[in-house]
Amino acid sequence: MTTDVLHDLALALPGVSLATDSTTLAAYAKDQGPVQDLVDPLAVVWAETVADVQNIMRWASRTNTAVVPRGAGTGVSGGAHATRNCIVLSLEKMNRILEIRAGDELAVVEPGVINADLNEAVRPHGLMYAPDPASYRISTIGGNVATNAGGLRCAKYGVTRDSVLALDVVLADGTLIRTGHTTFKGVAGYDLTGLFTGSEGTLGVVVGITVRLRYLPREVCTVAAFFPDFRTAAAGVLAVGAARVQPAIMELLDGATMAALDGAHGSDLGTRGGALLLIQTDGFGAEAEADAVRTVLSGLGGTVSSAGSAEAERLVELRRHSRGDAVDHELRVGEDVAVPRSQLVHYVAELERMARDHGVRLKVVAHAGDGNLHPTFWVSTAEGAAGAARLDAALDESITVALGLGGTITGEHGVGQFKLRWLAQEQQAEVLELQRRVKAVFDPAGILNPGKAIPGA
Amino acid sequence: MTTDVLHDLALALPGVSLATDSTTLAAYAKDQGPVQDLVDPLAVVWAETVADVQNIMRWASRTNTAVVPRGAGTGVSGGAHATRNCIVLSLEKMNRILEIRAGDELAVVEPGVINADLNEAVRPHGLMYAPDPASYRISTIGGNVATNAGGLRCAKYGVTRDSVLALDVVLADGTLIRTGHTTFKGVAGYDLTGLFTGSEGTLGVVVGITVRLRYLPREVCTVAAFFPDFRTAAAGVLAVGAARVQPAIMELLDGATMAALDGAHGSDLGTRGGALLLIQTDGFGAEAEADAVRTVLSGLGGTVSSAGSAEAERLVELRRHSRGDAVDHELRVGEDVAVPRSQLVHYVAELERMARDHGVRLKVVAHAGDGNLHPTFWVSTAEGAAGAARLDAALDESITVALGLGGTITGEHGVGQFKLRWLAQEQQAEVLELQRRVKAVFDPAGILNPGKAIPGA
Repeated sequence: MTTDVLHDLALALPGVSLATDSTTLAAYAKDQGPVQDLVDPLAVVWAETVADVQNIMRWASRTNTAVVPRGAGTGVSGGAHATRNCIVLSLEKMNRILEIRAGDELAVVEPGVINADLNEAVRPHGLMYAPDPASYRISTIGGNVATNAGGLRCAKYGVTRDSVLALDVVLADGTLIRTGHTTFKGVAGYDLTGLFTGSEGTLGVVVGITVRLRYLPREVCTVAAFFPDFRTAAAGVLAVGAARVQPAIMELLDGATMAALDGAHGSDLGTRGGALLLIQTDGFGAEAEADAVRTVLSGLGGTVSSAGSAEAERLVELRRHSRGDAVDHELRVGEDVAVPRSQLVHYVAELERMARDHGVRLKVVAHAGDGNLHPTFWVSTAEGAAGAARLDAALDESITVALGLGGTITGEHGVGQFKLRWLAQEQQAEVLELQRRVKAVFDPAGILNPGKAIPGA
Repeated sequence: MTTDVLHDLALALPGVSLATDSTTLAAYAKDQGPVQDLVDPLAVVWAETVADVQNIMRWASRTNTAVVPRGAGTGVSGGAHATRNCIVLSLEKMNRILEIRAGDELAVVEPGVINADLNEAVRPHGLMYAPDPASYRISTIGGNVATNAGGLRCAKYGVTRDSVLALDVVLADGTLIRTGHTTFKGVAGYDLTGLFTGSEGTLGVVVGITVRLRYLPREVCTVAAFFPDFRTAAAGVLAVGAARVQPAIMELLDGATMAALDGAHGSDLGTRGGALLLIQTDGFGAEAEADAVRTVLSGLGGTVSSAGSAEAERLVELRRHSRGDAVDHELRVGEDVAVPRSQLVHYVAELERMARDHGVRLKVVAHAGDGNLHPTFWVSTAEGAAGAARLDAALDESITVALGLGGTITGEHGVGQFKLRWLAQEQQAEVLELQRRVKAVFDPAGILNPGKAIPGA
């Protein structure tokens, strides 16, 4: 059966790159999310054109084969994990920037374009593509759209959805549709662009993306503020808002995160406080905003960097490029819950309690401007199944408590495969059922990325 | 039959306000959009609670009665026009602000809350609700959500969708669901909040809205610049962008609009130029941005107001409060197409040509920062059917040309009933069909605002 399907695939797609060797299958079996049930795909195919994607989906519809669309595989919720008897459809070769229209502040790209490459290309026009997940140097715009990726700058510039104007999408049956508009505003019909953005490849395969660009800020100012503890640093977050400053970036690091950075980079952050708040302001008001930030944070007892501090800038870059640290002898899971901003302090205190209760290690960094937290829990792999169970229990409780505070199970990573077990805690049965039925409109046979994003039928 | 239905309605909804007198029916038969086929509703009911809305929808489902949800009736695309054998469900009495959470920068409101009333209520907290359609003093947040309303400030702060975090929605069968999250970011499941926003009451009845608030800007600066003609003023729009200024408001008025203002207010704008660009900057950088704007626009030959000009501020207020002017002896239709920003000049030249070709009058004002135009065409009512036909022909051509330039038929008003005839020119058949099927998921019997937003089956 499997051999038949693959034979048929090769016949149906002459000239399309296809691999079935075990090394390739293993490499494309998972993304960077936690794996609970590792399976290899039947094959990996690389589309190079929209027509390739259409042919692949027509073949998949005809043979009722599951398709897992994949960008760079940098997702962290398992949205691109292979599932049983699936093929992986890689979009990484569709990596051309098709158009840059500086006067219209927009660009049209294929899904495999790397986020940083787009920024590189538009910089000479004085423009930027704002969404900047920590993976921006390796992740694709298509993948960013699939997960509605966030990042550091979304405190000011919004998430991926806010920069997507229009999408070209191949549906499960191979039909090519276009959603949205090439204007900044547009309200004709339902917001299908928003529906596809963040749908993790379960409704269609995004093959073209029209993004809104923004002018590069004239000026950027950075402030680093050390606080004795997390509580006072988090109070700083609210105080900056109340001072009516709109930071482009507002990151909050706890003591354990500072210790990890000290360990990795030989710095002495840990000797200077128990929590670190990093704030970047940009635009014409950047300096005035940074001044206001320094005044506010000093007033709260923060030890604040001086204007133009090179260290502050270096710390933001360190933070920007940290995507968690894989350690061989540790089992780690990074989370991305979000809570209403006023609950940051309370929630982190709860996380610390959970870490003690469950006997797991914890560090926390937060996109504090958005109330979006990245707690990382870990245990030693030497503890085996018992350690893993404690880690799981801590994760479960971290979700339950976040939801109790009015939070969400995922602020920016997506539900993927890994977070599916928590979705029904956040969303009522009727809402889950509506989503199943919406999915059925676009993908009646359920061949697009099954078992991801929403619970199956 | 009709009498039976109404008798049943009164029985099913004891204590709910209901009117069937001809004066009330006539008053609720239409919104402020053009009317092509005036029909009275069977009845008007006023919900005061979520339970009322649920009961009304259960009754409507049982009796297969069409329901037209209605806020303040200030829409201009006929989204709240009554249709045959419908009841109008007014949400205007559900007008309580349920919660203001300043620390979380959010508020929870009922759908009938007037936009300006919410702003009034949050101002003491140093906060604002950003979306500001010209109707903001009379339109409801629920209506703003239904149309995904824009406004002046969306150049910087985005449209209604960008300020909606969560929705409580009653579905066609009376089921109450909650979409979205009370955090700034959240990617759990499909974006149903975005799907409902702008769906014009065709997918569900919005009964609760959690909105994101923003801190009131510390400072606001206003610049007025007179230009010899529209072309140079529109060049100013692009130049301001290239100077990397992000205006909060950027409005462009043509000579005919200036003449209309002169006629209404006794001013002398028309003697000072052929086009007027009004720009407001806000935040910590407001002054520096306004300086940059003045430099750029002077360089392009604009006659620019000095810093702190009271006249410039007055002109923005005039523009902000102008919602078109009904004139008894004229047949007028205001449009809201949007085009890519670089096409503003070309499109307005085309509009002027069309006005000549079709023998209709024209004035144009644009939310220039978004490429969103409000051309108004008019003829004298004395010209009867011939004039109306010429007006229609001009409208049709204005849409076709906008689409040819990569534009959209509606930037912020919504499709409603009036713009439905043009939707198939913008969206392909497959996309229309998908929307019909999405609608069927939420409203299988098609009782929710039939004949609006998307073409019927």
